[in-house]
Amino acid sequence: MRKIGIEEIEDIALGAALLGAGGGGDPYVGKLVAIGAVKECGPVTLLDPDEVPDDALVVPIAMMGAPTILAEKGIGGTEYRTLYDAVSSFYGKPIYAFMPIEAGGVNSMLPIAAAARIGLPLVDCDGMGRAFPELQMVTFTIGGGSATPMALVDEKGNSTIFRTITNKWTEELARAVTMACGGSVSISLYAMDGAFMKKYSVKGIVTRSQVLGSAIHRVKEATDCTPQEQFLEITEGFPLFKGKISDVLREVRDGFNFGKVVLTGIQECKGREAYVEFQNENLAAVVDGKILATTPDLICLVDTETFQPVPTDALKYGKRVLVVGLPCFPLWRTKEGLDLVGPRYFGIDTDYIPLEERWKGGEQ
Amino acid sequence: MRKIGIEEIEDIALGAALLGAGGGGDPYVGKLVAIGAVKECGPVTLLDPDEVPDDALVVPIAMMGAPTILAEKGIGGTEYRTLYDAVSSFYGKPIYAFMPIEAGGVNSMLPIAAAARIGLPLVDCDGMGRAFPELQMVTFTIGGGSATPMALVDEKGNSTIFRTITNKWTEELARAVTMACGGSVSISLYAMDGAFMKKYSVKGIVTRSQVLGSAIHRVKEATDCTPQEQFLEITEGFPLFKGKISDVLREVRDGFNFGKVVLTGIQECKGREAYVEFQNENLAAVVDGKILATTPDLICLVDTETFQPVPTDALKYGKRVLVVGLPCFPLWRTKEGLDLVGPRYFGIDTDYIPLEERWKGGEQ
Repeated sequence: MRKIGIEEIEDIALGAALLGAGGGGDPYVGKLVAIGAVKECGPVTLLDPDEVPDDALVVPIAMMGAPTILAEKGIGGTEYRTLYDAVSSFYGKPIYAFMPIEAGGVNSMLPIAAAARIGLPLVDCDGMGRAFPELQMVTFTIGGGSATPMALVDEKGNSTIFRTITNKWTEELARAVTMACGGSVSISLYAMDGAFMKKYSVKGIVTRSQVLGSAIHRVKEATDCTPQEQFLEITEGFPLFKGKISDVLREVRDGFNFGKVVLTGIQECKGREAYVEFQNENLAAVVDGKILATTPDLICLVDTETFQPVPTDALKYGKRVLVVGLPCFPLWRTKEGLDLVGPRYFGIDTDYIPLEERWKGGEQ
Repeated sequence: MRKIGIEEIEDIALGAALLGAGGGGDPYVGKLVAIGAVKECGPVTLLDPDEVPDDALVVPIAMMGAPTILAEKGIGGTEYRTLYDAVSSFYGKPIYAFMPIEAGGVNSMLPIAAAARIGLPLVDCDGMGRAFPELQMVTFTIGGGSATPMALVDEKGNSTIFRTITNKWTEELARAVTMACGGSVSISLYAMDGAFMKKYSVKGIVTRSQVLGSAIHRVKEATDCTPQEQFLEITEGFPLFKGKISDVLREVRDGFNFGKVVLTGIQECKGREAYVEFQNENLAAVVDGKILATTPDLICLVDTETFQPVPTDALKYGKRVLVVGLPCFPLWRTKEGLDLVGPRYFGIDTDYIPLEERWKGGEQ
């Protein structure tokens, strides 16, 4: 158990944006929401998962809709109270703690804001250990958890609770209400008890985000190595490619951002070519025609000078980026995990081979 | 307390279609749903409102969406169970009885089907004593009742519970989910306790529908008078006009059927002209330029031979109809009632004058 204040939030937002693997929204907006709540209501208690009783009600908090609309509509002070009341009265018991559902610039931050405003602790875990584009892509699905009962509230005070026959229907109905509410709402889904959370969540992800963010903030202070060496050491990342963005192909389809970013090698990669495919998050990194990493491993693009993560919606011609691969949470490498989030699910015609093995095979 | 079986359903459907005042959907489809449920699960117990304890949970059942889609999708056997579970678990207590929210061909019947399938009694009351087009147009609004918590289920088993800041938002969000579910869903709204129901509901409306329907079914058996005299006697209706439909103007706007039916006088009305304006239900009857009846009084068009009600969506050129006015439930004639459903709300530029007074003034 420890406290999260403004300094921790700065680091967590940055680290979670890296773990967002290209998705998860703008950490700047998320950070403002969390910092505003903490300034007003005081710091948040972060619980280790093992500190949560087995029968306690633990509720993930997130946003649904477009982060760009969130940035315009904002988050008021009342929606987390409405969300609390809806979920708590549905279960007929108080909520013990909130938790994030995914890492990413926005959804790592909103649970902190919710915890501050309601005065509840936050649990140091999530359901992805990164960001993914679809609602069913959480470790809890592997454990047989259901997305519903799901609660949805808007900034005006309207609330909805869904119970659906499949998570696909959750998506359909919640998306319709999200649009009717203006395109951005606060949600809680996959509510669970402490025992289930301890068994299936990605533990320690808030702390990991914070450690990563803190290290990126200080990457240039390294004295015995280059900033890049320092960055790779602290992230334990694999430097897949370094290049200048020479093309960005985008297509918005079914509410997702699909696309491909093409890179021309610079420095140690001079004369080589690479591209990264994405659906909200980065899906596959291909260098000189050879796949070096695929989902569910994390493929992160960072600025070559500042090592700040570059989300897929900020990719621009001419920007110089380092493509880094990070191994995913082990549960994603099981058959059940790969059925949910493996390369073939996203239409990439390759078996999943862990990043480390592809690296060993491809290393010069 | 008495039982409702197939024979009663036939009469109730017909009488409720008359009280639908042009709206409320096709009684044939509604009847099939209710009869199917009663055949499978046995007759339904009809309770007098005064037989319901003050603290009992009473839940109106209806459909939302297009009756024409209901006719295609049908109603399964499971949605009333899902609806029961959603509402009951929300309130943390069992539902004591169902009730209709409005009279009309479809929504008078679905609560009977629900009661049969769940094995609950039905209360002999509703919230309109007729049909109205908008969700807030119930006597319960006058009593300060809220539409939400509102439950919505589809035939597949998906369910949603709404709590909204206004009934306008209930309409917005529930309409979005209704469309996402395919355009026709089962709902419960304005759940209330027995005490509130006894104070604000339109009591005895199921029995009244049945008496009217039974009388219409036997209208031609009259021996000492004409069928029309018989019909007017049992309905206590005012014969506003008799004519042949010479024009039907329709406009679908904001999900409602707006329009006007023009009549050329026949028989005792020969040489005279009339028209009836409607928004789903009939709103105003104008004969030779003079308003003879307006909402909230009931304006019903019936076939001149069979005296079967002709809903607004079945109006056709050449059809011969009798326009009958029926006085509305007294609560609608209060200031609060007229604010909700009076002529000016619907854009008709006249004060409300009770049907009986307009009739006295206009009688030859």
